[in-house]
Amino acid sequence: MNSPALCTKVEKGMKIISQRWTSLIIYQLLNGPHRFCEIEAALPISGRVLSERFKELEQEGIVNREVFPETPVRIAYSLTEKGRALEPIMREIEKWSHTWID
Amino acid sequence: MNSPALCTKVEKGMKIISQRWTSLIIYQLLNGPHRFCEIEAALPISGRVLSERFKELEQEGIVNREVFPETPVRIAYSLTEKGRALEPIMREIEKWSHTWID
Repeated sequence: MNSPALCTKVEKGMKIISQRWTSLIIYQLLNGPHRFCEIEAALPISGRVLSERFKELEQEGIVNREVFPETPVRIAYSLTEKGRALEPIMREIEKWSHTWID
Repeated sequence: MNSPALCTKVEKGMKIISQRWTSLIIYQLLNGPHRFCEIEAALPISGRVLSERFKELEQEGIVNREVFPETPVRIAYSLTEKGRALEPIMREIEKWSHTWID
């Protein structure tokens, strides 16, 4: 059977979501806004890599970065509308994992 | 807000799906069994990497490899039940990509 040509939108979507750690970061943010250190503590990921991922997710319009001018300065990350629209994907991954992963 | 501890099953599920090219390979196989060369032609991926991915997906019980003793020998890959159960995830990624990717 021949494959239909892959839609470039789907290819790009999969590339974004498949970026290492991205789905786990989004999954954490589904619970609400988080500070950098909270995500860093929740995932086995270095601060440098987490910072890169957040930059990419901001550039993609998936994550919002908000700076609160307190002392010390507080920075919170949250999902944009585009980011929250990823929730059904995450819920399906959750279901599949609970059913099929030992 | 604190993050709830991440479920290890969900973490493992996300790791499998997030492996580079894996979701695109599974997406192609949703259309039915394919030969190695068909997937290789459909994706911008080297034969070496595709071969690695297929081995991992076989080990995870997501893909079946069937050898037909023809001349030349024919090898076809298809999704197992565990692999086909990934379809709702792929469909949600498809929907999200069509809505949110320019």
